[in-house]
Amino acid sequence: MIKALPVFHNNHYNKIIRQATNSCEFSPRKTQTPVPEPTMSSSAGLIIPCKAAVAWEAGKPLVMEQVEVAPPQALEGQTPLFPRIFGHEASGIVESVGEGVNDFQVGDHVLPVFTGECGQCRHCKSEESNMCDLLRINTDRGFMLNDGKSRFSIDGQPIHHFLGTSTFSEYTVVHSGSLAKINPLAPLDKVCVLSCGISTGLGSTLNVAKPKQGSTVAIFGLGAVGLAAAEGARIAGASRIIGIDLNPKRFEEAKKFGVTEFVNPKDQDRPIQEVIAEMTDGGVDRSIECTGNISAMISAFECVHDGWGVAVLVGVPNKEAVFMTKPINLLSERTLKGSFFGNYKPRTDLPSVVEMYMNKKLDVDKFITHRVPFSEINKAFDLMLKGEGLRCVIDMEK
Amino acid sequence: MIKALPVFHNNHYNKIIRQATNSCEFSPRKTQTPVPEPTMSSSAGLIIPCKAAVAWEAGKPLVMEQVEVAPPQALEGQTPLFPRIFGHEASGIVESVGEGVNDFQVGDHVLPVFTGECGQCRHCKSEESNMCDLLRINTDRGFMLNDGKSRFSIDGQPIHHFLGTSTFSEYTVVHSGSLAKINPLAPLDKVCVLSCGISTGLGSTLNVAKPKQGSTVAIFGLGAVGLAAAEGARIAGASRIIGIDLNPKRFEEAKKFGVTEFVNPKDQDRPIQEVIAEMTDGGVDRSIECTGNISAMISAFECVHDGWGVAVLVGVPNKEAVFMTKPINLLSERTLKGSFFGNYKPRTDLPSVVEMYMNKKLDVDKFITHRVPFSEINKAFDLMLKGEGLRCVIDMEK
Repeated sequence: MIKALPVFHNNHYNKIIRQATNSCEFSPRKTQTPVPEPTMSSSAGLIIPCKAAVAWEAGKPLVMEQVEVAPPQALEGQTPLFPRIFGHEASGIVESVGEGVNDFQVGDHVLPVFTGECGQCRHCKSEESNMCDLLRINTDRGFMLNDGKSRFSIDGQPIHHFLGTSTFSEYTVVHSGSLAKINPLAPLDKVCVLSCGISTGLGSTLNVAKPKQGSTVAIFGLGAVGLAAAEGARIAGASRIIGIDLNPKRFEEAKKFGVTEFVNPKDQDRPIQEVIAEMTDGGVDRSIECTGNISAMISAFECVHDGWGVAVLVGVPNKEAVFMTKPINLLSERTLKGSFFGNYKPRTDLPSVVEMYMNKKLDVDKFITHRVPFSEINKAFDLMLKGEGLRCVIDMEK
Repeated sequence: MIKALPVFHNNHYNKIIRQATNSCEFSPRKTQTPVPEPTMSSSAGLIIPCKAAVAWEAGKPLVMEQVEVAPPQALEGQTPLFPRIFGHEASGIVESVGEGVNDFQVGDHVLPVFTGECGQCRHCKSEESNMCDLLRINTDRGFMLNDGKSRFSIDGQPIHHFLGTSTFSEYTVVHSGSLAKINPLAPLDKVCVLSCGISTGLGSTLNVAKPKQGSTVAIFGLGAVGLAAAEGARIAGASRIIGIDLNPKRFEEAKKFGVTEFVNPKDQDRPIQEVIAEMTDGGVDRSIECTGNISAMISAFECVHDGWGVAVLVGVPNKEAVFMTKPINLLSERTLKGSFFGNYKPRTDLPSVVEMYMNKKLDVDKFITHRVPFSEINKAFDLMLKGEGLRCVIDMEK
């Protein structure tokens, strides 16, 4: 279980949480080195009543409710329905741990992640993948994995979990494989934004596109994920970072993230890939697609230089979309890669992203444009719907 | 100029050549270290009359003619027409060099390559590309680059060059950027097959797909290029090499190249990518597409495992073909790469492929299934049209 101070913003939301973890896949028998008995807080094993923003129906505002949060159990599942507690981008502090959890202790500072890392499956054991078989993102699961039950209830009625995190609650229960233990000195009300979108964009550049010093990089979509991808290109030493967006207002903000040039497809009477190829003597070295629009995906691929260009897809398109291109675009030595959560393994790699912030290599402050108290969480949705700002942090203690 | 002993086979052709190079992009001013004056053979600067197999018209057999080969000039171009001397997969010995050529000497053993390496352009300077801007494959050029003229003539009528190589001639003239100098101990009547298809397949695995030890690899198309890709997978230590071909007769031969399992799409009532995913618990680690069939290209991509799978396209499809896939196949961390000539830089890298043969790491003998004398070159076309064998070497001295 974790107690939370959350955060929000225009596309995603974030919470600072004190959190208790469950023990699912981490029984003591699998642990090969002795681990000290974790200290339990006074709430260990007890139901905690707390405030949570509950989604009772689709499309309706969240309702602040007093919920009861059951303690973590020995193993933790879901279905897609309402009522449900949303929220997945957050930070928190461990309040208690379930039986068999040896890798977290009460008081640990953590980032919950919408996709986990069990450490045991082929993906977790692969150096290349971060798509854990057990804890991979699953929007259809509303309960804990181990017993198929919810830890949230209101007057005995179960409330569904969401993405294994449900951070729109002062306390939540998550699978220990979905928590990254981070530097306790990191400010939770800032690094909360690293638990989803920012890391997704940053990692898509640093881990997947891997631009070399002096490279040219095109970023499609200048929302928070795209700007985090631009931040990655800046950190990698790109010489030119070309931002592509339909909204010209985004350019001023994008400059803070290293974007050096701006192209609006609306201003062009020919395919944007042709415009970019002309600007860069044949194409950019790397491109990152962060909109999920299928045309943008195709343009992002076709705008990279032959011989060495790499295009990375980040944005998630609708299910009917089909990626299409002439094979010659591939055969002339272009590479097309998809990415997921910036290829970061949640538990293994997120602590190092927090360290990038602590070492001032990565600036997260500029992503946080708004803050609202938890009691006014629906204002964060209003900001998001209006397209205002980048990230709105929700202060759980107000 | 190079004198040639050629080679042929069922999909491609090969020649052993004694060859003189031209000086195009290699003037002495650009050379920074002093180079000894190359020794000239007695034919230096002279027109050499020799036998060549001339293509007078499309679709007609080649005609053995006495042609006159002019010496290499200071700079070397083309158009697509007949009459033309074909041939591009070959080996040879330098007969004379043009003015300004400092990196070849008379007597050097060489492989001519259909795509060159000028050493000066962005592609040649890139660590990743082998698609030289100046000397990249160009089927439409029929003359030398420097003066737009042919070095071949019959009674004063110019005969067009082909792919900058024209190896169906006892002597030919090629741009020095299209020649790789190789170990003089390597048998020219064997390593001739390394100047095109075999290196293309081998490099697509070793340089582009890069399977790790123990990987599973699928090879689409078991012609010489696909079998060379399989050979690459064997060398890389793949644990399973799955060959896919519509012709069941190819499986026996494929076993010699390390193919461990065979799947014929004709025997299946569902998409081949589903069959392969089932055989391999979710997909192969790497796939190499060597047919150019667009359905095979899509299957080759979709049969790789999520999280880490890499598909490499080698085969060249028709111009109308469109590659199509659902973006989720990419977003689940699959990579799609095109390749060209196995990503080998012709001059820089081919000598090391010859060394792989000399060190017995790579076996080329098994690719050579037929030999015919130069005077019977059209028999090699017959074999190719019947789909018999892999490579037919043409002996220029018979």
